Amino acid sequence: MNEQPPSSIATNNESLLLLVTGGTLDKNYDAISGELNFSTTHLPQILSQANITLDLSIETLMLKDSLEMTQTDREYIAETCVKAAQTRILITHGTDTMTETADYLSSIGQLSGKTLVLTGAMRPFMLGDSDASFNLGAAIMAANLSSNGVYIVMNGMRFDANNVRKNKLLGEFERLRR
Amino acid sequence: MNEQPPSSIATNNESLLLLVTGGTLDKNYDAISGELNFSTTHLPQILSQANITLDLSIETLMLKDSLEMTQTDREYIAETCVKAAQTRILITHGTDTMTETADYLSSIGQLSGKTLVLTGAMRPFMLGDSDASFNLGAAIMAANLSSNGVYIVMNGMRFDANNVRKNKLLGEFERLRR
Amino acid sequence: MNEQPPSSIATNNESLLLLVTGGTLDKNYDAISGELNFSTTHLPQILSQANITLDLSIETLMLKDSLEMTQTDREYIAETCVKAAQTRILITHGTDTMTETADYLSSIGQLSGKTLVLTGAMRPFMLGDSDASFNLGAAIMAANLSSNGVYIVMNGMRFDANNVRKNKLLGEFERLRR
Amino acid sequence: MNEQPPSSIATNNESLLLLVTGGTLDKNYDAISGELNFSTTHLPQILSQANITLDLSIETLMLKDSLEMTQTDREYIAETCVKAAQTRILITHGTDTMTETADYLSSIGQLSGKTLVLTGAMRPFMLGDSDASFNLGAAIMAANLSSNGVYIVMNGMRFDANNVRKNKLLGEFERLRR
Repeated sequence: MNEQPPSSIATNNESLLLLVTGGTLDKNYDAISGELNFSTTHLPQILSQANITLDLSIETLMLKDSLEMTQTDREYIAETCVKAAQTRILITHGTDTMTETADYLSSIGQLSGKTLVLTGAMRPFMLGDSDASFNLGAAIMAANLSSNGVYIVMNGMRFDANNVRKNKLLGEFERLRR
Repeated sequence: MNEQPPSSIATNNESLLLLVTGGTLDKNYDAISGELNFSTTHLPQILSQANITLDLSIETLMLKDSLEMTQTDREYIAETCVKAAQTRILITHGTDTMTETADYLSSIGQLSGKTLVLTGAMRPFMLGDSDASFNLGAAIMAANLSSNGVYIVMNGMRFDANNVRKNKLLGEFERLRR
Repeated sequence: MNEQPPSSIATNNESLLLLVTGGTLDKNYDAISGELNFSTTHLPQILSQANITLDLSIETLMLKDSLEMTQTDREYIAETCVKAAQTRILITHGTDTMTETADYLSSIGQLSGKTLVLTGAMRPFMLGDSDASFNLGAAIMAANLSSNGVYIVMNGMRFDANNVRKNKLLGEFERLRR
Repeated sequence: MNEQPPSSIATNNESLLLLVTGGTLDKNYDAISGELNFSTTHLPQILSQANITLDLSIETLMLKDSLEMTQTDREYIAETCVKAAQTRILITHGTDTMTETADYLSSIGQLSGKTLVLTGAMRPFMLGDSDASFNLGAAIMAANLSSNGVYIVMNGMRFDANNVRKNKLLGEFERLRR
């Protein structure tokens, strides 16, 4: 994969928008029901633990398992990205349909001048030993350093929206083609 | 800060070399002595928790508090970077003298064709609630996406080696000038 | 509740048998299926973290959600307790039917000369912030200091088998009567 | 060791007083100084994680490394125990001089009608993988089930104040004689 012309890689460490949509990353164990579910987003806690000093705004759009995400939800995410003042946007998302949302976002012409990065986690942040913090760190850096486009950041890798799938057997993301 | 021409931003997700030098990131609590010290590097555990699939080799050069790092240590790090087959190199390092080592590495002419990223942690990985995983994720992405040069990645930010200092009062890295 | 005569409170810190039956305490999150399930018991890890030096043998009888425990399972537990050389026995168990198993065990005449303590957890040990270690510590001490009988140890309390229920709304154990 | 007559083992799950004096259990890592120190007690967090429902009052007397504990400190602890309405008292304490304080408390005639249990931790609660929760659980149960006397609860064992030492090489408590 080759980088596009650098015209859009203007300034490092720009203002970032972080859109929260839920996914495994934000689930927690509910001791009364014995199930994993959502109460609130843990992104502020993750970012505070990381001592971030960059200019970042968090907006929670929904807290959903990505298997339950609808077309209406995806349109709402796209709309929020279009309207946002920021050109660099990070989206937390469940891993099961992350590639579908990435596909959809990359089809929106009005977003062609923005850098969108989707990330999530295979293990909830609140359960410990999670990949959430690492993925967030990688995704924030990718959002700041990548040219316009839609990307997925997982497994320490950055994937183009149109060249990635989730290998559900391994629980890993991989390229469709070299 | 503007990016240099993209000639060196060739391929995403290249082979990475990770050089371990110690620092707070790798310390742990020793229950017998009641002190924080080094036994082994925890980088393999951090990266396994992050489910990384990228091509990365780990080499432990030393396990030192960066306040005890000598000029000989810095020469050894530089030499290892020069000799390495990889052009993208990540270095874990104590935060107290991280900027000194970055300065030194950016003065080595033989390294001008490589991308070097230094990172560390304010709280040891093994003590929980650490910034280590986030910083590693951010640094790995920065190592893969940045053009030639020496960088420090901390606090969710990427700094140029010649424009950064540690604010010891706040425990944060900051630019010397805009 | 008054203690029975001390005839059986012979020696402190006797040899203990720990029987593992599963329950929330031993569940973990499976990142591939996205569900909580059993792989192996984590009791050795819990006890190693606690630096225990007392003479304790661990035997895993089953790894089951206690809602799936059958009469055959309970008979197997009882039989193992009867046959055991040890007179002080700790049993880890799911909380949902812990009182049923305690009831059954207290109905077995052959166990009247033994001290049996059941405990478990509301949050799996492997998810962090768990009550597992505390409950284990309390239950081990209760097993060593209590006279013959069947007890449940949860919430920092010791309950008699015939005077306890789980309040499922609160996720707490409570006495049926004073 | 044989139990004393059961006259004082009156009621299970009585009201408990928990006196906090500091020790490793309550230390945390300070990212700015890079050292372990005290800010506040973490006992309320430990007990909340354990879902305790028993009647327990917490009083912080001091937050000290037990190597810095003075005779005045020990007198203050003793005095607080004498004046307390509760007869069952738990004391958190650094492990290095825990046996000295236990010795001193067992020399106070006015405390002969009370049950005092000292406990602590080899690894701070806030650093994860700690023995703090297990030890607290064991100590609370010992405080509720033991007859009058002064005890140390560590390593899953209950020791009499006059028959215990810390093996500093192993980081374990052990009996002086069988």
